[in-house]
Amino acid sequence: MIAKSMVKYVEGSSVTRAMFEEGKKLAAKYGAENVFDFSLGNPSTPPPESVKKALSDILNETEPGRLHGYMNNSGHEDVREAVAQSLNKRFGTAFSQKNILMTVGAAGGLNVILKTLADPGDEIIAFAPYFGEYNNYVANFGGKMVVVAPDILSFQPDIEEFGKKITAKTKAVIINTPNNPTGVVYSEDTIKKIAEVLYNKQEEYGTQIYIISDEPYRELVYDGVKVPYITKYYKNTIVGYSYSKSLSLPGERIGYLVIPDEADGFENLLCAANVANRILGFVNAPSIMQLAVARCLEETTDISVYDTNRKLLYNKLVSYGFECVKPEGAFYLWVKALEDDDISFVNKAKEFNLLLVPGSSFMCPGYVRIAYCVDTDMIKRSFVQFEKLAKCYN
Amino acid sequence: MIAKSMVKYVEGSSVTRAMFEEGKKLAAKYGAENVFDFSLGNPSTPPPESVKKALSDILNETEPGRLHGYMNNSGHEDVREAVAQSLNKRFGTAFSQKNILMTVGAAGGLNVILKTLADPGDEIIAFAPYFGEYNNYVANFGGKMVVVAPDILSFQPDIEEFGKKITAKTKAVIINTPNNPTGVVYSEDTIKKIAEVLYNKQEEYGTQIYIISDEPYRELVYDGVKVPYITKYYKNTIVGYSYSKSLSLPGERIGYLVIPDEADGFENLLCAANVANRILGFVNAPSIMQLAVARCLEETTDISVYDTNRKLLYNKLVSYGFECVKPEGAFYLWVKALEDDDISFVNKAKEFNLLLVPGSSFMCPGYVRIAYCVDTDMIKRSFVQFEKLAKCYN
Repeated sequence: MIAKSMVKYVEGSSVTRAMFEEGKKLAAKYGAENVFDFSLGNPSTPPPESVKKALSDILNETEPGRLHGYMNNSGHEDVREAVAQSLNKRFGTAFSQKNILMTVGAAGGLNVILKTLADPGDEIIAFAPYFGEYNNYVANFGGKMVVVAPDILSFQPDIEEFGKKITAKTKAVIINTPNNPTGVVYSEDTIKKIAEVLYNKQEEYGTQIYIISDEPYRELVYDGVKVPYITKYYKNTIVGYSYSKSLSLPGERIGYLVIPDEADGFENLLCAANVANRILGFVNAPSIMQLAVARCLEETTDISVYDTNRKLLYNKLVSYGFECVKPEGAFYLWVKALEDDDISFVNKAKEFNLLLVPGSSFMCPGYVRIAYCVDTDMIKRSFVQFEKLAKCYN
Repeated sequence: MIAKSMVKYVEGSSVTRAMFEEGKKLAAKYGAENVFDFSLGNPSTPPPESVKKALSDILNETEPGRLHGYMNNSGHEDVREAVAQSLNKRFGTAFSQKNILMTVGAAGGLNVILKTLADPGDEIIAFAPYFGEYNNYVANFGGKMVVVAPDILSFQPDIEEFGKKITAKTKAVIINTPNNPTGVVYSEDTIKKIAEVLYNKQEEYGTQIYIISDEPYRELVYDGVKVPYITKYYKNTIVGYSYSKSLSLPGERIGYLVIPDEADGFENLLCAANVANRILGFVNAPSIMQLAVARCLEETTDISVYDTNRKLLYNKLVSYGFECVKPEGAFYLWVKALEDDDISFVNKAKEFNLLLVPGSSFMCPGYVRIAYCVDTDMIKRSFVQFEKLAKCYN
């Protein structure tokens, strides 16, 4: 009855549902406070107070036609201009409203730009480990996902393998820094090397290859680390942003794309992305949330909570003998499984009421992701369980 | 640089932009009050006051995790239950929350259900004239659009031709009543005949053929006309709804799909639609608007304004000798062009500062669409121009 292309998703869904049901069973058996769910990237901190104030003020100040009506498919022009100016101020860029397209979250933005760029058979590169949903987004347009294997020491992209994976059919490279699932921030050196490889390959093949920079975690960084703004290093860069994490608004689906003037084919990209936003059924980003985020552009949720969680979890897990990548951003800890099979390891962890996500879901078996966007108290209560888990393998 | 599949859209966009620029030029030359833009289906009436109150109350009453956080991809369960109960009360159906999937407007909903149902090469039928965007939605999934020519007397679907167009590859039929662009409401007799044809063809081919009922105009009806609830006549019906018109919220992108229990493959449809909502990049319908519409389910914008406009425009145009379909719903008047070529007629109308949409855009040349979701005063001021336009052809 359903499309053949959807059958595998329905099968996959039942696995997820089974996991979810199992979590509920564990909670019923042991008490919710004794089950430690580290599986979801769902922000645990509330939006800053300014979001509520913005929404309330907007409701009272804005005439209904502007507040809830249609606008240009790319979004409210003053909102786009405000986003551009905020980027310029923070990153030394030179954007204006024409470079900004408001989107239904980053997921919407990525689909819009992939529809804009990719024909069936075009190749899209991503660096493992990466957010598994990219596979689905690329498949929506009949694109072919090409995976660069991880450098399992640094989890910075493997530049040499990257160069080898680029072909005449390569249309785009998705990068995600700060990274889900590793928490790694790509260094300026990494970005420069990626840009160099791409400039060379563009010349070699006489093609355009775009970086699609997926940046929902841009503001979630620790220890004063800087996240390079990619458009400054490579001109064919499209940025996809979301307020889901920075303002803790994941249910509202609000984000934007940046398409810089200097991108090859700028005018056509702009026009095609505007049309893609419409014909994919997004039409435009939700109006009231566009107006709200425009008033909170330099605000964030309380990131110090995530930093506390990060340090607590990293230090304890290392002390128990786990091999972890020290995260500089996002809200995930990337941990080497204590046996080769990460799925078997995740099942073992479940015996201790620890719910983790296998690295296989991120095209990187042998590891697990621990999401620390959770209550700090839950993290503290979980330590004894992680210690027992470690001891199983000693 | 852009995808080959997007080139035609970029070319089409420049035509739309040229029209828009021309409108602005006319306004600059003759004064905005002397240009009569009947081209856009953008609601001119404000949302009911209850929408503002709902949003304000929700902001004050709801904890941030529920207000702005992730929820099930299908939407808040209590919102879905409220939608289901409202439908049951109004239409005598028997839905519950599991039958409702909250979507990013009807455009989002249609894309979700097409992704759920259609593989490349599958055939989707629509009755001309129809909203041209359906072509794009079907193309998103590699589907083949099959057009049933209009019955140009009644603009009810031509049942005989419909039967002939169904093949073993027919996956779905999109219907839209009240109709954009004609304003026609399909009669109960029409719906029964469509259902009969489909049941017979399902048996003949051993296939499932779904009705996708696109219903953004369900509440916009006049003269007490009833719009049959399609799931009661044909069990393989999926309803796509939007609050864009009934609550004048087009910029907020909020609507829902109804997937009835009795639809063939119900469980798989439900699961696949939930996944499709996620992987197409919608993820979920905007949270705050889900909560808001749940509090305004039996409210509408002031539809009497559209009724006034409808009567004024229909009566005058008929008195000038135009041949019009008397609309029973939506906010469009469907008028026979006074020459064979509707595009040439639209250009002639432009000489009188009347901006109309050619029927060709709705797969039905020889007609034009006049959107009367505009200020009543503008309609009155436009009469002298319509009269001059008619006289051109006498």
